[in-house]
Amino acid sequence: MLLQIYLLNFAHCKRRIMISAAKIKLIHSLSRKKYRIENGLFLAEGPKLVDELSGRFPCTFAAGTAGWMEHHRGFRANQIECVSDAELAKASLLQSPQEVLALFRLPDTTGDIHIAEKELCLALDGVQDPGNLGTIVRIADWFGIEHIFCSTDTADVFNPKAVQATMGAIARVQVHYMHLTGEIAGLPAGVPVYGTFMDGKDIYSTELHKSGIIVMGNEGSGISPEMENLVTERIGIPSFPAGRATSESLNVAVATAITCSEFRRRNAV
Amino acid sequence: MLLQIYLLNFAHCKRRIMISAAKIKLIHSLSRKKYRIENGLFLAEGPKLVDELSGRFPCTFAAGTAGWMEHHRGFRANQIECVSDAELAKASLLQSPQEVLALFRLPDTTGDIHIAEKELCLALDGVQDPGNLGTIVRIADWFGIEHIFCSTDTADVFNPKAVQATMGAIARVQVHYMHLTGEIAGLPAGVPVYGTFMDGKDIYSTELHKSGIIVMGNEGSGISPEMENLVTERIGIPSFPAGRATSESLNVAVATAITCSEFRRRNAV
Repeated sequence: MLLQIYLLNFAHCKRRIMISAAKIKLIHSLSRKKYRIENGLFLAEGPKLVDELSGRFPCTFAAGTAGWMEHHRGFRANQIECVSDAELAKASLLQSPQEVLALFRLPDTTGDIHIAEKELCLALDGVQDPGNLGTIVRIADWFGIEHIFCSTDTADVFNPKAVQATMGAIARVQVHYMHLTGEIAGLPAGVPVYGTFMDGKDIYSTELHKSGIIVMGNEGSGISPEMENLVTERIGIPSFPAGRATSESLNVAVATAITCSEFRRRNAV
Repeated sequence: MLLQIYLLNFAHCKRRIMISAAKIKLIHSLSRKKYRIENGLFLAEGPKLVDELSGRFPCTFAAGTAGWMEHHRGFRANQIECVSDAELAKASLLQSPQEVLALFRLPDTTGDIHIAEKELCLALDGVQDPGNLGTIVRIADWFGIEHIFCSTDTADVFNPKAVQATMGAIARVQVHYMHLTGEIAGLPAGVPVYGTFMDGKDIYSTELHKSGIIVMGNEGSGISPEMENLVTERIGIPSFPAGRATSESLNVAVATAITCSEFRRRNAV
C-alpha cells in the first residue's frame, strides 16, 4: 500500500529535484521591490492563490509537492518542479508553506491610465502596510471596485505579503501607481472625492453617490494635507455610542470595508 | 549645544543601563503563550499602546529611550530602565522598535463570566490569526462592544501581535476564553445568535436586534458545524454587483467590521 502511494506520487513527480540555490536566492530576493522590478517577477504561495493568479498572469516557475502536482497536471508554467515539503520550506517565505509556490510575470502598474469618473473607485494616499493593502484589494474585489489608484508612496501590491493578503483578488482588481494628487486635481468639476475624517459627516446619513473616488490615507497620519484640499465630501464612521471614549481610529482596511459596504448598500442592484 | 542636549537627556535618564540578557530572554519568550502564563506577563510596545495599557494593567517593567523618558516622568512601573535605541532594538519583537516596550501583568481571561444577554457581544469560534484577533478587539471597542467570548482554540489576545493590533483597545474590551458552544447552548431561548454565511440573508435588509451574539468563525473553515447548529439568524454580506464572480470571502476582521457597523447603524443612539 505504501509502495503503491509512493509509486503513484513518483509517477506524477518525474523530476523530483532540488530547487537550485540560485533559484532559492531569487525567490527570497522578491520580498524586495528592487529585485521584483529587476527580475520582472513576483511571488505567490498556496494552491488557491496560485490557481487564481495563473488565470491572469503568466507563470514562469512553480514548485509544488507531489500532492499538489497530482491535482494540477494541466498547470501551465515555463518550468514546474516537484519538490519535497522540506525543499518547499527552504524556498518559501511563509511560516507554514502551502503545497506550492510560483513566480509570475510582474505587470506594469504605471501605465497611462486615468481615473474612470463614472465608476466608484478607491484612491490610496500613502497606505504603508502590505497586509492592509492586500486586504483592501480583497475588499475592492468583493464590492465590485475594479480600479485602485495609489500614490507612489503607497506600499507595492506585489510585495509578497500584499499578494498573500489579496487571496487572489489581485487577479481581478487593477492597482495603478501615479502622482495621485495631480490626477485627482485634474478631474472635472463635480466628480465627488470622498475622504474619511474623525470630524466628517456621519456616513450612515450623508448622501453617497454611485460613482466617485473614495480616498483612504496613511495608517498613522491619515490623508495628507495636500490630498485633504482635494476632498469634496468629508465623511466619517461614527463610533458607538456617540461620544464614548474609544479607540482613536479604525484600521485603514477596516475603515475601507465599512465605507465600501455603505456605498454599495445604498446603491445595491 | 550638543553637550547641553546630552546633559538634558542624561538628567532624565539617570540609570542608563543595559537590559540584562536574562530580561531580554524573558521578553522574547513572551511571544509564546506558555511563557506568558508561566511568568504572568505580556508585552506591549510603542508609546501610545503602553500609555493606554498602563491605565488598565499593572506595569512591572518598562524600557524607554531618553526621549520617551522625558515625556513620561510620572510613568508608574515596578522597574523603569532608560535605554539606547540599540538596546531597545535588541529587546524588541518589532521590526521598527518604537521608543518603549513594557511588561504588564497578565489578567485572568478564564473567569466565571457568562454572556450578557442584554448587550450586543461578539463570539469568536476559532479565529487563528493574532493580527485578525487584535483588529477585531479594536473594532469592538469602536462600536461599543464590551465583551468578546472566544472558543479555547481561538488565538490568545495577549500574543504580542494581537496586543499590537488592538492599538490599546484591549484596555477597554474584555476578552474571555471558554467552552463557547456550551455557553451559547445554555442561553435562554429567544436570545438571537447571528452567524455570517455565504448563503445567509442579506444583512442590509434583514432584521437586526439591538442585543444578541454575533459569531465569527475561523479564517479558513468559517463557523464550525457544532456552532452552526446554534446559530438562529444566518446572515450574509452581499458582494456587488449581485452574482458577479468575486473573492470567495472577506477577511474575518473585515466581515466583523461590516457586520458591527450595520448593527450599530440600525440602532444608533
